Amino acid sequence: MVSIATIQFTPTIFDVQNNIKRIKDILTSTTADVIVFPELATSGYFFHSREEVETVALEFLSKEMQEFQQIAKQKNAVIVLGFAESFEHKLYNSAAVFSPNTIESRVYRKTHLFYKERYCFDEGDTGFFTIQHPAKDVSIGTMICYDWRFPESARVLTLQGADLIACPSNLVTHIWTKVMPTRAIENKVYLAVANRCGTEERNGEEVSFNGQSHIYSYNGEPLVSANATDDEVLLCTIEPENTRDKSFNSENDILKDRRPEFYIV
Amino acid sequence: MVSIATIQFTPTIFDVQNNIKRIKDILTSTTADVIVFPELATSGYFFHSREEVETVALEFLSKEMQEFQQIAKQKNAVIVLGFAESFEHKLYNSAAVFSPNTIESRVYRKTHLFYKERYCFDEGDTGFFTIQHPAKDVSIGTMICYDWRFPESARVLTLQGADLIACPSNLVTHIWTKVMPTRAIENKVYLAVANRCGTEERNGEEVSFNGQSHIYSYNGEPLVSANATDDEVLLCTIEPENTRDKSFNSENDILKDRRPEFYIV
Repeated sequence: MVSIATIQFTPTIFDVQNNIKRIKDILTSTTADVIVFPELATSGYFFHSREEVETVALEFLSKEMQEFQQIAKQKNAVIVLGFAESFEHKLYNSAAVFSPNTIESRVYRKTHLFYKERYCFDEGDTGFFTIQHPAKDVSIGTMICYDWRFPESARVLTLQGADLIACPSNLVTHIWTKVMPTRAIENKVYLAVANRCGTEERNGEEVSFNGQSHIYSYNGEPLVSANATDDEVLLCTIEPENTRDKSFNSENDILKDRRPEFYIV
Repeated sequence: MVSIATIQFTPTIFDVQNNIKRIKDILTSTTADVIVFPELATSGYFFHSREEVETVALEFLSKEMQEFQQIAKQKNAVIVLGFAESFEHKLYNSAAVFSPNTIESRVYRKTHLFYKERYCFDEGDTGFFTIQHPAKDVSIGTMICYDWRFPESARVLTLQGADLIACPSNLVTHIWTKVMPTRAIENKVYLAVANRCGTEERNGEEVSFNGQSHIYSYNGEPLVSANATDDEVLLCTIEPENTRDKSFNSENDILKDRRPEFYIV
């Protein structure tokens, strides 16, 4: 049994110090084995240039970010946190994946960039990966928001052994609510979608985020779900070992039945 | 504009000659550019041994099957028809894809075998392919029933240029109704699911098929859908050219945004 917290959290754009303070406050009052925050939770979302992102981007090894490493250790929790990452003159839309076991902590950099993100961020270069909770029997993969649109994202994480896919998001369309359950079903994995709410207006253009964060079971059914307009903490427990037998009758297994010789990438 | 007929049709197991007669009767009264019948429409579904399938299997080039070739020519229609195929001592769960242009006609052999099919059929060896209607601007791909469970099937057909995926089916679970729209959405393709109804009982074991054949638009919305219990002909028109621009805003295109260097098969 593994406990999951999925945090519906709305940052204030450009106000990194205050966003970080609010994230820490939530962490103080949240207890779970895995805690998932939205995409770009430290910075806000709707940047219009690389110059703007440079003013909010943090290095993974920065003092500010490494304080979350300490919290992960103290709480014995894996913390998945979306942030604007600066690294060697590049800018990434990233998720820090802090393990209580520091050496296992890694950064996932968003593979598929949405809308005007391509003018502000570099395309992710990490690819997909999973990490193991050092004290719990659960393998956690990460994809970010628009990655959901590509069945390849969740499939790769599943082939890498994910029991749970954490999906920090800033979702603006509504079609994801139809497709996201499929990502759980077709891979038989749990899926934690941490979304934000609210609206950001920049230079007369507006984006609205639609909340409704979810933790889906491996059969695509919601275990818990959030409202559309306000911040909220979703809590539930999952049984990761249930995702590992991919059979669903005496003859079929959704991974063993694959026939990669007929697939093309 | 291309017209599609999706036939919800329930064959009688083992009664090949009568099933073929009924299929021909339906074809006589059906006019469309593309006509899709269910999986194993000539034979019925729930066989328990290869020996049983041998009694109903037909060669693609047999007189019986090539009569459908003539009908495809006369009607100027692509006909997709599920049948039990015999070929060089192998047995396949196949779909004949008859083009009005005989030389383009081909057989698709089911890639992913469901439940006890593996005791009765050989695994398909054709892989996925598309064919072009010779008189209409539409590219048609085929997958069969349980192939839906694997996002790779519809993805490969889309990468091969399918505007429309024909999916002859004998669906027995209900979870497909949740996932099938995703196959249309994630690939921006039309999807024609021809299912059957009824129950087959063999040696005390029973399978029930759940009808509800659908033609989905490329946004996952049903254009037409059938009832759960009785045979029915679904008709609609589609606009294949609408599937070819895979962009959905000024910056994103669901095929161009793919990053195969991070995908694994």
